[in-house]
Amino acid sequence: MQHIHKKINSELNPNVSVDCVIFGFDLEQLTVLLIDRGEISSAFGPRMALPGNLIYDNENLDMAANRVLDELTGLNNIYLEQVGAFGDPDRIHKESDREWLKSIRAEPEARVITVAYFTLVPMQQYKPQASSFAKNADWVPVNEIKELAFDHFEILQAAKEKLKQKIKIQPIGFNLLPEKFTLSQLHRLYESILDKPLDKRNFRRKIQKLDILSSLREKQRGVPHKPSLLYEFNEEKYQELTQTGFDNFGF
Amino acid sequence: MQHIHKKINSELNPNVSVDCVIFGFDLEQLTVLLIDRGEISSAFGPRMALPGNLIYDNENLDMAANRVLDELTGLNNIYLEQVGAFGDPDRIHKESDREWLKSIRAEPEARVITVAYFTLVPMQQYKPQASSFAKNADWVPVNEIKELAFDHFEILQAAKEKLKQKIKIQPIGFNLLPEKFTLSQLHRLYESILDKPLDKRNFRRKIQKLDILSSLREKQRGVPHKPSLLYEFNEEKYQELTQTGFDNFGF
Repeated sequence: MQHIHKKINSELNPNVSVDCVIFGFDLEQLTVLLIDRGEISSAFGPRMALPGNLIYDNENLDMAANRVLDELTGLNNIYLEQVGAFGDPDRIHKESDREWLKSIRAEPEARVITVAYFTLVPMQQYKPQASSFAKNADWVPVNEIKELAFDHFEILQAAKEKLKQKIKIQPIGFNLLPEKFTLSQLHRLYESILDKPLDKRNFRRKIQKLDILSSLREKQRGVPHKPSLLYEFNEEKYQELTQTGFDNFGF
Repeated sequence: MQHIHKKINSELNPNVSVDCVIFGFDLEQLTVLLIDRGEISSAFGPRMALPGNLIYDNENLDMAANRVLDELTGLNNIYLEQVGAFGDPDRIHKESDREWLKSIRAEPEARVITVAYFTLVPMQQYKPQASSFAKNADWVPVNEIKELAFDHFEILQAAKEKLKQKIKIQPIGFNLLPEKFTLSQLHRLYESILDKPLDKRNFRRKIQKLDILSSLREKQRGVPHKPSLLYEFNEEKYQELTQTGFDNFGF
């Protein structure tokens, strides 16, 4: 079963791969899009893995990550940030992983260095699709994940740490939300990324003082509680804010 | 001329290298340790490059970076942080770079992905030494560098940006200073890393309020101006500070 389609004039590089940590937010918890390796490995090890693939010889690393993302999510030109390279000599040599690699790779024994990326996706707006490297993919809450294939658990932790640092200095969290959101949803998003409770009143005061949201004349619909006001992120106002030298939210 | 010594039972991996951005501080400016590729390339392109080498098949990436550092500086177990992977398909294919690679590598045409690291070295305390990949190495002020071999200029900029972000949240700058330093030297260090002037009185007040320095009963000697008080970084007090949730210097 050879999934990988060859591109004209380009060969797969057997030594370098990219893996993508695709974060989402289900309005309660931070989630990540995992692929299911299926039954071939279920007897031996974790079924779930991060989506990834070998790079082509004519691609740079960002292009390869974009290709993997595009194939799995149909999204392109979305926020993408490199987490780093992972190159333990034994990173793909567990028995269960070898078994799976034999079924998908031409050189399953080759040493592979992987370059990890993370991205943020508004998960409400689309469904993952089957791709050359995954028949099934699913959103899983990050805090429920205990193990993954290869060194992907380690990569996930590194990506989460990077997201945590980044959200303190740039408003990238808005990429995880629907276009219109409530202050409660934004508050819960920051709590779940920073992994700690944040005082609700302080949070609201801080965000409103920064003046980077546009309040809409519109409320939530079809919710079982009193509907809240909806907001949009205001990119223009954020740019004005950064021109004052602002580079930290102080969370 | 084949510089690279083989380790027993391990082969060089022709597809993956590490490159090290070794930062220093000459008490006035941020500097970086560059190797001189010599005359072979001088007719075609930049002579200077970041120190780096292919990885061995039994090494992980951190080990390879440590080996390169150890060989060139004699220092080991020093602060080391990954900047990221650089993998443009054409990153080593400029004419001047090919020429040089032919003289040092078994497979000069192979595509090489490099993983960049940065480290901080108290440059007063030692001299760079000749190594398997460099006959000469020298400290150069970062702001005077206009070009480097391969994609090393791009890597240097990325490393500097990472250092800038990092010094805002962790007191890693002390690794660049002699053990005993003046507040003026610390102030100048932050200015040269952050690339902007910082008000001297505000800076001193901020640092002293954090209470992470020990003031020594000792002054500078042999300086042509009024000698200043010397300080040491107090790791213990910094650890106490972080336990209060502190994670930003606010520079």
